Parts: sequence; structure tokens; C-alpha cells
Amino acid sequence: MALLETSRYSQGSALGSVNPDLASERQTASFCVERLTALLDGGAEQTRIRRAVVEAIESDPVFSRENQYFQTQNERYEAAVRKAVHLQKKMHEMGWTENGPEYKYIYRALSGDVAFLLHRVFMRSISVLGSDKQVAKWIPLATQHKLIGSYAQTELGHGTYLQGLETTAVFDTATQEFILNTPKISAMKWWPGDMGRSATHTVVFAQLYIHGKCYGIHPFILQIRSLQDHSLCPGITAGDIGPKMNFEHTDNGYLLLKSVRIPRENMLSKFCEVRPDGTYVRQGSQQINYFTMTTVRISLISDEVLTPFMKACTIAIRYSVVRRQSKLKPGEQEAKILDYQTQQEKLLPQLAAAYAFHFTNNYLQELFNRGYAEIHRKNFDMLPELHALSSGFKAVITQHCTAGVEICLRACGGHGYSLLSGLPSLYTKILASCIYEGENTILLLQTARFLIKCFMAASAGQPVPPSVTYLAAMKHGKCPAKNKLDFLSPDIYIEAYQHAAVRLTSNTAAKLQDLIQSGVKKHDAWNQCTVQLVQAAKAHCHYIAVKNFAETVEKLETKAGIQKIMKHLCDLFALHGIFSNTGAFLHDGYTSAAQMDMVTASYLDLLAVIRKDAVPLVDAFDFTDKCLNSALGSYDGQVYQRLYEWAQKSPTNQMSPAYERYLKPLLHNTLSKL
Amino acid sequence: MALLETSRYSQGSALGSVNPDLASERQTASFCVERLTALLDGGAEQTRIRRAVVEAIESDPVFSRENQYFQTQNERYEAAVRKAVHLQKKMHEMGWTENGPEYKYIYRALSGDVAFLLHRVFMRSISVLGSDKQVAKWIPLATQHKLIGSYAQTELGHGTYLQGLETTAVFDTATQEFILNTPKISAMKWWPGDMGRSATHTVVFAQLYIHGKCYGIHPFILQIRSLQDHSLCPGITAGDIGPKMNFEHTDNGYLLLKSVRIPRENMLSKFCEVRPDGTYVRQGSQQINYFTMTTVRISLISDEVLTPFMKACTIAIRYSVVRRQSKLKPGEQEAKILDYQTQQEKLLPQLAAAYAFHFTNNYLQELFNRGYAEIHRKNFDMLPELHALSSGFKAVITQHCTAGVEICLRACGGHGYSLLSGLPSLYTKILASCIYEGENTILLLQTARFLIKCFMAASAGQPVPPSVTYLAAMKHGKCPAKNKLDFLSPDIYIEAYQHAAVRLTSNTAAKLQDLIQSGVKKHDAWNQCTVQLVQAAKAHCHYIAVKNFAETVEKLETKAGIQKIMKHLCDLFALHGIFSNTGAFLHDGYTSAAQMDMVTASYLDLLAVIRKDAVPLVDAFDFTDKCLNSALGSYDGQVYQRLYEWAQKSPTNQMSPAYERYLKPLLHNTLSKL
Repeated sequence: MALLETSRYSQGSALGSVNPDLASERQTASFCVERLTALLDGGAEQTRIRRAVVEAIESDPVFSRENQYFQTQNERYEAAVRKAVHLQKKMHEMGWTENGPEYKYIYRALSGDVAFLLHRVFMRSISVLGSDKQVAKWIPLATQHKLIGSYAQTELGHGTYLQGLETTAVFDTATQEFILNTPKISAMKWWPGDMGRSATHTVVFAQLYIHGKCYGIHPFILQIRSLQDHSLCPGITAGDIGPKMNFEHTDNGYLLLKSVRIPRENMLSKFCEVRPDGTYVRQGSQQINYFTMTTVRISLISDEVLTPFMKACTIAIRYSVVRRQSKLKPGEQEAKILDYQTQQEKLLPQLAAAYAFHFTNNYLQELFNRGYAEIHRKNFDMLPELHALSSGFKAVITQHCTAGVEICLRACGGHGYSLLSGLPSLYTKILASCIYEGENTILLLQTARFLIKCFMAASAGQPVPPSVTYLAAMKHGKCPAKNKLDFLSPDIYIEAYQHAAVRLTSNTAAKLQDLIQSGVKKHDAWNQCTVQLVQAAKAHCHYIAVKNFAETVEKLETKAGIQKIMKHLCDLFALHGIFSNTGAFLHDGYTSAAQMDMVTASYLDLLAVIRKDAVPLVDAFDFTDKCLNSALGSYDGQVYQRLYEWAQKSPTNQMSPAYERYLKPLLHNTLSKL
Repeated sequence: MALLETSRYSQGSALGSVNPDLASERQTASFCVERLTALLDGGAEQTRIRRAVVEAIESDPVFSRENQYFQTQNERYEAAVRKAVHLQKKMHEMGWTENGPEYKYIYRALSGDVAFLLHRVFMRSISVLGSDKQVAKWIPLATQHKLIGSYAQTELGHGTYLQGLETTAVFDTATQEFILNTPKISAMKWWPGDMGRSATHTVVFAQLYIHGKCYGIHPFILQIRSLQDHSLCPGITAGDIGPKMNFEHTDNGYLLLKSVRIPRENMLSKFCEVRPDGTYVRQGSQQINYFTMTTVRISLISDEVLTPFMKACTIAIRYSVVRRQSKLKPGEQEAKILDYQTQQEKLLPQLAAAYAFHFTNNYLQELFNRGYAEIHRKNFDMLPELHALSSGFKAVITQHCTAGVEICLRACGGHGYSLLSGLPSLYTKILASCIYEGENTILLLQTARFLIKCFMAASAGQPVPPSVTYLAAMKHGKCPAKNKLDFLSPDIYIEAYQHAAVRLTSNTAAKLQDLIQSGVKKHDAWNQCTVQLVQAAKAHCHYIAVKNFAETVEKLETKAGIQKIMKHLCDLFALHGIFSNTGAFLHDGYTSAAQMDMVTASYLDLLAVIRKDAVPLVDAFDFTDKCLNSALGSYDGQVYQRLYEWAQKSPTNQMSPAYERYLKPLLHNTLSKL
């Protein structure tokens, strides 16, 4: 039953029949795949809407990703622009709106391969940072695409540390203009998407100077290209920064400004304004600004990280039941590689993590929604916790999923290394998420700063936000597990994670205090603790993820085998974390060596249990073949046929001038047959 | 002094002056860089020869790698063929021969970016597996490039497990020919380098059938393309397998065979022969065959793994003293990012590992040379140990260095993600080394099989090879360290590593025996232990690497600060391994929690010590700017200028048809100025 329902949406194969080695995996599913898909989507109605969007997008040849792996950066860019322009028409045609229920599925269906994503950021910046008058002027122009916007913050020499930006905006009272300059090469704007070739406008961040005094970083609307012939405006030098590991479709750009004048009205002035006489006025609260970063970090987890990670799991697991290699038992057929314990140990923890982080994402979304409601009531109390959790989880999830995609790629051997598998591009794309929107180490240190602060407060008996109340409850006990089955009890493993997180936080807080008390300056002491602070922040997030997974499982419907399989995955996620990081649990003797051997035994047992449902568990992610765009991962498992079919289309199978130029002269004078 | 000598060879910058932030790092070197370079090269004379080769190659425009990051797969292939053909001329011109001292430096100077590498494997196969008559016929033809050879072993459906290959060679007594077929799609040859577009001949591996009986896998010489017009020979279908993560310059190919007939003389017959009447004769020992695999695994460590890893360290460390980001101390200038403990913790252990594995490689080379000499005396006793060590270290070193390059890439933030940094292509290239020449997990399990066997033998009091005698010496003691300085004593940490390796091996051996005694079949029991067997094999290699590094340091000259800095790196390598894997050392209480805290303290202290010499330590690798081909890593540290200069040359800065086709119609009707 599950098989039939899913297969409707997994077409695109010209090959027809399902590989019997893959088909057999689906016949023994312990749960209803369709129900699990609905659970992941947030209800059967959502599944229906999503599939309708996917169907509409994938049946439109303009959005095709066929032959994508053969395209140059220039071809990818052109295709992305074509898709972006066509998407406007499509949305109108389908009656989809930016606020409609379909909207969030479009990006997934396009696999992000579309231009003008920064145009959206441009609009959001104006909405959030602009005055009512600015919003009234610019948003309609942007909505109607009378201009193409971008967002110019990062510079060649400056990223995370915004105060260090070097671009200047000097106010000239005489002309009522700002004069923009990138005074040094390191001040050049670098990386902004859509800016290299497409954008006509951008929001540029610069140090504001009035009468020689610096007022810090402010945002300005700036036109960079003519709306008539797209030529660069006077004083502007701009272009594309060239090839990257991925994002070939995006024209990440550079921008040099040489005394570019813009009117006073172009400084976004919801929170700060420069009056005609040069008076600087600050108004309203800027706290909402930090909330924007939080929004972006949470939203990227689902779109940019979990989706590619789930795709990688799907590809590698389907391939691992089709590929046979070597013999497990003498005299038998070669074994499916997923029957090897080492292959299970590579892939199944990734599968468990994909589910774990899906539920973490739900948790963050819910927290975010509550925070958003509070902020609308002018209550900013939840901001620090929200900032700490979104920063920490952005780092932990991007890092884990990037490593996971690499594991999936390598688990497919040579075929994983071919672009046609789809895995290399998933890897190179997800890797970027570790860097953009806050470098991971810096984010983890922000989480750690929150943890240390809360730990101190909790130790002093002060109230702390809900996610960190556990820091006050350090128990010096021992893990009570008596046999390996005890480690399948969430209470047991959640407490182990909690203990490790508290220990790492409290030990680092103590080291920090010791250093300061011994006379080390505060900033030096902090720097000397950062390696351990990062560990504490990771342990905190890992604990929350495990606890949240277990609590989610607790609330699931018990029907159709869903709760049972999710419980197995939760156990696997938790025990894999302990098995891979035994030192954190053994350190102070909370877990004994004998108990760690029980963890190992339970963990390895679980691999064999989950292996049976591995294919149905990835089928539940419900990716169509077109969306996966993988010769290894298609629903029918006809791996070898597809690799051969696709390879034949490669431009490397066209005649090369190398033969006439180099090979023919080299082989000259040889006989025709040896 | 060190500075001047090195800089002679680090040219190629049009920019001239050295970035003062980088220059200052060189002024305080605690050791003589030039002497360390000579140590790495194996003597000052070797350094001289290497530099002469590099100079000759880099001054020749045909070998230029400029603009490489902008080229398509087709352009890369053509360039690689051009270079391969030109190299013949160059070698002749320079008087370099395949047996001369210069030869080994050519590949490094070319960064491997050259065609016909499989031609060499083709020749080696014939030399090793061919009869005297076959060698006499084919080697001169190949040497003179009257043909281009390849090596066709891997199939679409078959890699590591050679017995599973499906290509067939049926002997036809009537015509004295073999009839070659790839009977199923999974039997198609897939991946062979130089075969997609260049090769005229190949050594193809197939199941030999005589009178209906299968005699297993044998090698055959096969012509695939005409020597006159390069068209495919009758019965042959061949082409290029398309895009990959890297190796764009290589035409990895596919090959389908349909009743292709080759003469009886084309089966390589040093060890096995088919007589005219179909009699199968086996002659000589095939053990030397295994030795070939060992040769390849050891040789790739240096060329394909350590060189790119050292390049990545060079790029990331130089960049980290040029890049300033955020403030360490309030009121001061932004800090060099290498001054942050977290950045040190990312990069300096990589630097230590680069040195550690360089010395491991020397150790393996020496062992190999001894083994080779023994084999010539018909003594094959060393083969199992050599096989175990080369397999294990191939896996451990490729895995560590791949992860290390990724760390270097991410440590450079956004700029590391640009192809212009050189880091993405180093990563995508080194990643392949985890897959080819034996998939790492399978190799580690071969090492583990050797370990278990030796452990059993040692436990029974039988003699075992030198590298595993320690397995007999399991002590149930405790680590004797009393304070953090004790962990800077090699005796202390070597014993800790030894203890962990013995424990993992002996525990897994015990589990294996328990399972078998409880009635589990041998192959099932083995499979159920494989996750732990892999851990044991890694621990064994890690122990050998640490021990060898410490012993190497012991023997170094004490002059010029060399021994001192190498000792620091050895300590860092050892302590980083413990710090990153605390569970392995805490498990049975060999190391206490208090001792682990001492390890952490000493480890973090060492980071600050080595940080001071970080730049001189990468300068000693002595890569020229052209060889690094990195906008971030050049000797002069003029990062931003170079990024800007290079980006301007990108084809993405040419006019795109996207404007006329899509942007202009979209922006139509808009005013010229908003």
C-alpha cells in the first residue's frame, strides 16, 4: 500500500521496472510510508499541496534540471535567471501567492536553482529597516520587478564582525547627499548574490560619517546599474567574483564605490535618521534586528540543510541495496552492501539524524513563533534564548549534515564521486551553510556565552530561560543502567546527555573564573577557554536534540507502526552520539566502562533493526526522481542503466580538438594494427 | 636568512611587497627554514634538484595552470593531453629520464595535471604480468608512444571484489583467439583513466573460460581504437563517463565489448598460459602481484595525499595571519585570526599531522625497500606485514588528510569556498584518494584481519612481525603521568596509544571468539565485529605513527632549532589524537579524568607555542606560488589584490545572453533613475 501511494510521485524514469533488489526492501516495511510522509509534512493536506506544487513545477520544461551536471557556470546563471523570470508567470498562472500555502514548496521543488533570491532579502531589508515612506516607495517597485535588488554587506576583508566594515557614507549637508566610498581594497563589497551581473539596486552597509564623526554601520539604498541599458552607474565598478564550489547559478558579485552620491532619503531610516542639518536621531528599538538574523538561521535549516541531507540519505541508502559487492557467506550470491555492518554504521546514523533534526527544526519553529508573538507584544525576554538556540543549532546541524553528506558520498564508492550521482553537488552546496549566515565557530561561541551567563545565574539561584534550567540541576550521581536494554530507555540516555552538557559548561565556567582570579585579563581568559566553550555549546545542543526527539516520539500516534520505528531512530540517534563521543560520558565516571560496552552492544543491535526499514524510511521523504536528479538514487534503482544513459550525453563525448592537435601527430607513423 | 633563501623560489607574484602581517611572522622563526626544507626533501642536494625541476617546468608556458579554475572539463582534458605530449619533449630537452633523480619531482611540479598516467600503469602491468616475449613486443611500442595504453579493471557493478568481475574471455581453439564480452550492463568497464577519449590499447581483466570451465580473472591486451584515425575497433563501444568532482583533466572511460576477438598471444602470460590445445598452465608465484598493490598504495600517499594536504596547510595558515577579524582586546586593532584559540585548534593539528605523516611515509618507504630486497631473494615473509601497514596507512592517512583539507577550507571562511583559493580543488582531489586503490573501510578490515591473526599468534606465544610484537605485551597498569608536563614525554603518550590499540584489538578478538563459541557462524561473527575491527586497525596505525614520529625526532640534528620544533609538533600530534578521542584512553581507566584534564591543558598550551612558528613551518614545505595556484596562499600574502585581479579574468565577467533575453524584457518600461 505504502509502495503504491508513493510511487505515483516518483516518476521520471524511462526505464520502468523497479530493480528487484530494491523492490524487495519495500515489501517488508514495518510501518505505513504514506503516513510517515504526512507526519513529516505536518499533515496529509500539506502533503497534497506539496505534491501539487512539485507536479506543476516538474511538468514545466523551463524548470528542468536535466543536463545540469554538464553545464558551465555561465549556462547555470542564464538558466537561473530564465527560471526566476518564468516563475513570476507560473505563480500568476497557478494562483500561488507569497503568502499562500504553496509558496514554501516552490523553492524545494526548484532545488534552489533560481536567481533573484537576494531580491527578496533586499525587499525584507527595506520592510524591516525602512521608514513608512521608504517602504511605500520601494516595495511596490521591487514587487513589480521594476528593479532587481541585492544586499551588499560582506566585504573582501570583513565578514562576521560588522563593526569592522570599511565602506563609508559621508553626509554632505550642502547637497543633502551621502557620498559613498570603498576607500581600500579590503573595503570592496564581495560575495553579495545577484550583484555580479543582475542587480540594478542594492542595500549597501557603510560607516556613517557626519561632520567628521563616525556613527557606525547603516544601510543605504543604492542604484548600481542603469535601468535602460544595464550599464554601471558613475563611480561604480562591479562584476562577478568567479567560480565557487557550488552556487554556479548565482552571480555573487563585487562592488567598488568611488564618491558615489545618493540622496539623504536613501538611508534606511526606521531606527536612525539624519536630519537635513546633519543631526543624527535614533528612534525605536533595534532589538528586532537581531530577530531577523534568528529568522534567517532557522529558515535555512530546513531549506538549505535538511533537504539536501535527506536527499543524500535517499541516494546512498537506495544505492546500497542495489549494489552488491563481495560475499558475506561463502557460496552465496554477492551481498547487498547495506548488509555489511560497516555500511550500516555509516548510513543509518545519518538517517536517524535526518529525522532527529527534522523534529529539532519543528521545535525551533515553534519557539520562534512564540517569540515572534511575544515581540509583537513588545516583550523581548525570549530573544537571548532564541538567539542562543538558533545560533547553536545552525552550527551543529549544518556541521553534522555536511559531514553526513560526505559520508553518504563516500559510502557509494566511485559512483558517489561522479557528478551524475548528485552527491557531489549536494555536498558542495551544504558545505557553504557552515560558512554563511554566521561562521559556525563564532555562532557556537555565542551560544556558549549564553550558557556561561545562565550557568552563573542559575548557580546564584536566579531564574533562567526554560531550555537551560537543567544547568542548575547538576547531579553527581552515576548512570543507573544495568544492562544493554536499559540504554533503550530515553530517561537513561537523556540524563547522560544532560550530565555531559552540565559538566562541560560548569568545568569551563570554573576554568574561566580561575584564570580571571589568577590575574589573566578577561578577554584573554575567554580566548583560552574557547575550544572548551565550543564543546559545551555542542553538548548543550545535542542534549536538546535528543530530549526533543524522545518527547516527540512520546506524543506520536501509535498506529501504523509509526511510533515504534521513530522510537528506534531516536534510540539510534542518541546511542550513536554516545558511541562516537565516549570520552564525554566516561570522563567523570558518570558512565562506567561496562556501561559503555552496553551502549556499544545496543547501538550495534539497533543498526540491524533499522536496516530492515531503511528504504521505506527514505521513501517517506518523498523526493521525486527529478528532484533528486541522481543516477544512483532514483525510485526504481536502475542505477547502471541510468549512469550509462546519462554519461553518453556528456559534452566530454563530443569530438575533442586534442586528437587532431596532439594525439594524431604523436601516433603518426604507427601501423593500423599491432 | 631562512626568509631570503626560500623566497627565491616563491615568485610568480606581480604584486611585489610582502604583506607586513605575514612578513612579521617570518622574522621570529625559532628554526632555520632552509634546513627543515632539506630535511623534508632528504638532503640539500635533493632540494636543489627539486627546485631545478620546478623552475624548468614553471618557466615553460605550456605547463601553465593559470586560469585553470575557469576551464571546462573539455578544456582541462585538452590541456592535460597537450602537457603530456610536451612533457616527452621537455624531458628529452632537459636530459631527464624515468630512472633519473629528477623524475619524481616532475609530477609534483605539474600538480598531477597531465594525461597518460594510465599509460604508465599499462606498461607496468605488461612488465609485471607479461612473458618475456610480450614485454619485448609491447614495451618498446609503449615507450615510443606508438600506442596509448590504459588499464581496464573496474566495472560498472564491480570494484574491490575482483572475483566478481563479469567480463568474459572465452578461448576458441579453432581460431586460437579469445572472444571478449561484457555480457551485462554491470559488466561494462567503467572509470579507467585515459580510456574515455585517448587510449588506443588497454589491459582488460576478464574471467577466462576454456572449454566451458572458468579459470578466474586474467589480464588481456586489447586494441580499442584505430591507430590511423582513432575510430573505435569493431565490437567496441567506448566513451567518457562524464563529469566528476575533480579529475576533469582525465578522460575516465567506459568500455563495452561485443564478441571482440584477440589472438591467444594477447593474454599476459608470465604466471598463467593457455596452450594452443586449450590446456591451462600455471607457472611461477603470483605473490609478487600483491606487492604491486602495496607499491601503489605507498606511492600515492606522498604524491596524491601529503602534497595537497601540505598545500592546504600552507594556504590556510598564511591566510590566517593576513586576515584580521574582530577584536581580541578591546580598543586594539582587529586580531589576526590565527591568534584565536579556536583557529589554532583547527589548523595547527593539521600542520602537525602533515609532518607526522611525512615521517610515516618515510617509515613505509624504508619498510617497502627492505621488503623489496627480500622478495628478490625469494623471501616473501614480510609481505603480510607490509600489506597490513600499507592498507591501514593508506586508509588512515587519506581519511585524516581529506578531513584536514576540509578543515583548512572552512577555516578560511567564504574565501576558502572560492575556487580561486585553491582549496576546493585540493579537497575534491584528495577526497578521491579515500575511494580509489582500495576503499578505506575494506582496507582497514584487511589490517584488522592481520591484527587479529597476530594477536592470536602472540597470545599463543608464537613469533609475530616486528610492528605487532606489542600486542603480546598487554599491561594492565595505569598511566603514570603526574602533571601536565609529563604528557610532553613521548614514553608516556606512546604507551597510552599502545595500551588503547592493544585493548581494542584484544577486546574485539574476544568478542569474535565469544560469538563463534556461542554458535554464530564465522562470517556472521566477523561481520558483527567489523565496526570495532575498524577501530582497532585505526588505533594500531595511530600508535605506529606516533611512535615513529617520536623516534624520528630522537634522531634529528639538534642544531638550528630543528629538533626542538619537531618535538613540539610530535607532542601536538600525539596529544591532539588523545584530546579528540578521549574515550579510547579513558575506557578501562588507563588514563584517569584528572590525567585527561592534564592532556587538555598541555595540548592547549602547545597550540600557543606552535602558533609562533606556524608560518615558517609551512614555508618549509617550499611550494612556489605557481604550484599552490591560490589567491589566498601566495608567499607575499597579498590576498585581496590577487582575489580581485583573478576574479576579473573569470568568464562570468563576460556579457551574458541572460540580459537581452530575460532581464531587459523584465525591466522594460522602467524609468532610468528612481
